[in-house]
Amino acid sequence: MIQGIGAATGVAIGKAFVLPHWELDLPDSEMDAVDLAKEFERLYEGIRTSKNEIEYIKNEFKEMVGPEESQIFDAHLAILEDPVFMNEIQGIIERQYKAAEVAVKEAIDHFVSMFDLLDDEYMKERALDIKDVGNRLLKHLLGAPEVKLPADTQPYILVAKELSPSQLVHLNPSHVLGIVTMTGGITSHSAIMARAIGIPLVSGIENKLEEPIQTGEYLVVDGDTGLLYVEPDAIILEHYEEIRDQQQKKKEQLQLLATVEPITKDGVTLNLAANMSSIKELDIALKHGAFGVGLFRTEFLYMDRHSLPTEDEQFEVYKLVAENVGDGSAVIRTLDIGGDKPLDYLPLAEEENPFLGYRAIRICLDNVELFQTQLSAILRASVYGNVKIMYPMISSVEELKQANAILRQAMEDLDRRGIAYNPDIKVGIMIEVPAAVTIADLLAEEADFFSIGTNDLVQYVLAVDRMNEQIAHMYRPFHPAILRMLRMTVDAAHKAGIPVSVCGELAGDERAIPIWLELGIKDLSMSPQSLLRVKHRILNTNAAEAKAEAAACFKLSTVSAIEERLSAFPERGSSAKATKGTDSTAS
Amino acid sequence: MIQGIGAATGVAIGKAFVLPHWELDLPDSEMDAVDLAKEFERLYEGIRTSKNEIEYIKNEFKEMVGPEESQIFDAHLAILEDPVFMNEIQGIIERQYKAAEVAVKEAIDHFVSMFDLLDDEYMKERALDIKDVGNRLLKHLLGAPEVKLPADTQPYILVAKELSPSQLVHLNPSHVLGIVTMTGGITSHSAIMARAIGIPLVSGIENKLEEPIQTGEYLVVDGDTGLLYVEPDAIILEHYEEIRDQQQKKKEQLQLLATVEPITKDGVTLNLAANMSSIKELDIALKHGAFGVGLFRTEFLYMDRHSLPTEDEQFEVYKLVAENVGDGSAVIRTLDIGGDKPLDYLPLAEEENPFLGYRAIRICLDNVELFQTQLSAILRASVYGNVKIMYPMISSVEELKQANAILRQAMEDLDRRGIAYNPDIKVGIMIEVPAAVTIADLLAEEADFFSIGTNDLVQYVLAVDRMNEQIAHMYRPFHPAILRMLRMTVDAAHKAGIPVSVCGELAGDERAIPIWLELGIKDLSMSPQSLLRVKHRILNTNAAEAKAEAAACFKLSTVSAIEERLSAFPERGSSAKATKGTDSTAS
Repeated sequence: MIQGIGAATGVAIGKAFVLPHWELDLPDSEMDAVDLAKEFERLYEGIRTSKNEIEYIKNEFKEMVGPEESQIFDAHLAILEDPVFMNEIQGIIERQYKAAEVAVKEAIDHFVSMFDLLDDEYMKERALDIKDVGNRLLKHLLGAPEVKLPADTQPYILVAKELSPSQLVHLNPSHVLGIVTMTGGITSHSAIMARAIGIPLVSGIENKLEEPIQTGEYLVVDGDTGLLYVEPDAIILEHYEEIRDQQQKKKEQLQLLATVEPITKDGVTLNLAANMSSIKELDIALKHGAFGVGLFRTEFLYMDRHSLPTEDEQFEVYKLVAENVGDGSAVIRTLDIGGDKPLDYLPLAEEENPFLGYRAIRICLDNVELFQTQLSAILRASVYGNVKIMYPMISSVEELKQANAILRQAMEDLDRRGIAYNPDIKVGIMIEVPAAVTIADLLAEEADFFSIGTNDLVQYVLAVDRMNEQIAHMYRPFHPAILRMLRMTVDAAHKAGIPVSVCGELAGDERAIPIWLELGIKDLSMSPQSLLRVKHRILNTNAAEAKAEAAACFKLSTVSAIEERLSAFPERGSSAKATKGTDSTAS
Repeated sequence: MIQGIGAATGVAIGKAFVLPHWELDLPDSEMDAVDLAKEFERLYEGIRTSKNEIEYIKNEFKEMVGPEESQIFDAHLAILEDPVFMNEIQGIIERQYKAAEVAVKEAIDHFVSMFDLLDDEYMKERALDIKDVGNRLLKHLLGAPEVKLPADTQPYILVAKELSPSQLVHLNPSHVLGIVTMTGGITSHSAIMARAIGIPLVSGIENKLEEPIQTGEYLVVDGDTGLLYVEPDAIILEHYEEIRDQQQKKKEQLQLLATVEPITKDGVTLNLAANMSSIKELDIALKHGAFGVGLFRTEFLYMDRHSLPTEDEQFEVYKLVAENVGDGSAVIRTLDIGGDKPLDYLPLAEEENPFLGYRAIRICLDNVELFQTQLSAILRASVYGNVKIMYPMISSVEELKQANAILRQAMEDLDRRGIAYNPDIKVGIMIEVPAAVTIADLLAEEADFFSIGTNDLVQYVLAVDRMNEQIAHMYRPFHPAILRMLRMTVDAAHKAGIPVSVCGELAGDERAIPIWLELGIKDLSMSPQSLLRVKHRILNTNAAEAKAEAAACFKLSTVSAIEERLSAFPERGSSAKATKGTDSTAS
């Protein structure tokens, strides 16, 4: 038994497959290039292959984990287009008559040691990226074989010194039961990925093994406690098989809820829609019983390409969503992009504080053609299903009016072109900038609905970038200021008679259910993976009790007190009810 | 008459002094170093001299313009400590036996062309910095003379191709009447500086001159319209002399207000205190009639040094402020620093969004010793005058309680050491994070006073980094959401019976006076430069009319409408009164 770090939850039992350590050696003797042109050709071919490979990995990664995380590969692609790096390689080939692989190796070494010298985190990260990309390029130049994972054997537990995100993306979750890595911790990229894919992971066991794990050895991986067993005895095995089977059973039971209505024990219905970042998630969303799409992010249509997507291209995607939402609706959010995710064909300046920068609706209002094209595509899709339009990052009445003016232009243009659309399409806004909460009553006069984007709202209201590890612990959605802002928004919406939903991650947090019930929010939209879990909790909730609990939370002045109450709620609620029940019987 | 860009307001009339273009040439023949050690010594000596020079410029700059702007010189200092740049220079000397100045020149050229190749704004900026610093180092190695501006002659109008901030910092405002530059615009660094120092500047006349301006020619510079006259005729001269004299007279009249109480025409007093970023501003503040110090920033005590300031060092500064505030008070804000201004002895990680990052009270609560030392120093100063403590960036009740707990520790420690302090010292908080506004009622239970920091508050509420040029136009303090947040804060303070003041830049904006009157805010704190201007407006304001005007603004839904009304107010107010006056006479 070895105590490691439980980096991704779950139990895995199976045989080890030990990944050989990926290292490339150059032939000892330096090769002299007899033919310069040939070496250049080999270099360009290697770059092309590497680029395609990274693009491929990036797309796979994005589907598996999400567009945010897939961006690390953009940095890799940029290196293969970096003139300084390329000049260095070409210079070595040209002036020193060295083979392409030798030139690449020397250029990597040069830049890595140069960047490493600088006492600058940004530069050190760039050094790592260059190393990673350079090795990939080297691999192609040397014709080194890709390390293949067994695909035709029984599912296995992968054991590796370290896993890079580009290795992890190649894993087939149905073949890999669990992962063990020597290095790494809870916040490593591989850990974040493993959790996203749902593969149990124990890491950080480097110096704790008496002898290395061998391929074929039987392992138990407990990602919850961080324990690893090598060749465990029958008692331990039986114990863990039971846990694993229970986990499996729970999963299956949850799946049975897909077609069940999300109604509390005392009859209050909450509608659970899905958030989507690409069209490929539609199947999962429907399979998990989503009632429509509450947030259809459109950024993926604009990324990984060299020109703007056309109206027709976009229309086809929106139409597909519209046709598949059944009785629900498809809320399509207009482009929400910023300086931290620049597009090839829309150059954006680097910003000191991109979250407080030029992004989302601010960019769209400055690029009328881009915006009108997207609005036209959404309008055209509106005849194929219940489509709604949603603007992100609205912070003033002026912005909303300006956006709506462009929408009217798009409608007039479609009229001229004789193309059908739903003229009564609902147009709403994200409530995610603090100003929008404060003037929600004014915005409600111009919007058909609100959808509260809790992720950004919490970041702005608390002035906490949750991606910043040093203060991530301060990102607390149950802060009393947030609860009050939710109430202000809902009050303004109800007063104006427009619907209000929640589409931030908080919607997928079961602890928040009492808050929604108390505020009278009926519509939640969340990641497809959260749908069944949240539904399960709703089915086991008594709305009256939950509302009382939430009402009590609104009176608390610290986030810890609120979190504590909400986390303890279902038990507290049930026991309170049980006590009450006993009392009434006695009286 | 030449039409340029009016980059800094005001009129200047006088003789031209044309600055020779600063360019260094190396001797044509390469010098071979006969003595390596001697060249290294020359290099190090040059680096030392350059560093001292930059430090000196930086400090002058900071006093003249402010700590924010002076940071551009930190980048310059960093380059002289950059191991990669230094290794390159040393390598050229060592391996190629070249003289130090030749090595420096080659290293500059190498890095500048390398960084220029990268299509990256960050890199291009670094290239400019390297060029600037490298040229300074070169100047010292070559023993080139500093370009001296005439100091013993009559005041003159400076004419230059371009002015770098380090040249501008050397200008003596009493010698330089105005500036004309060939290149540059309103947003250039020199323009920002010229405005801060108050020197009229016309720029961007590069291709508009038929022949170059000569030293000694008579010029008229109109920084308001952007007009430049070379050897103007008597009529023009007379016209501009009149304007200049009026401006001068206005300035003098304003100065007469220093000892006048800031009372509206109908008898409402507003207290005007000063914001200070260093002890040197105290004189100006008092000369401009400041009623105490409403915001004493303490960052300067921590910057430009290699270790933390001691309790005694800080005490001496706080004591000096305490002794000089008279009937007013000295509100000392505890350290407000972040990842964008790291300290030598307190390494902070680079952050993606420093404004939403690890800063101010968040750092202090994690560094108890640092924080307690500062609090002890402030406490000790509290027996020498009316000193108050203010915590920045409070976003929760927990933080405030935690800070107060450390304050109690500091008090107990002083008790043990037998050192006197005022046990009833008032302890307040900045209201600048949106969450603080939302839970102002809860925070009021733990704080003795509020001070609204409008700069950050506006940035967070609107999600706009005002330093970001692309969206700076969206930084609008008169946004209806801001007005409502001001009201929420004031309501909470008044209900709890604690004072509330404003110390952001909005306090120095005359247009906001009706808002303060309407909300019942009595205390404003602003840059010493704004004091007399704001007082002048208060003296000419009718509070009853102003309140009515502000009340109307609170009902408007767009920032443009609010800005328009407030900008037109005094005229609108007076005319309204005049009309009323006529009416009442008639009746």
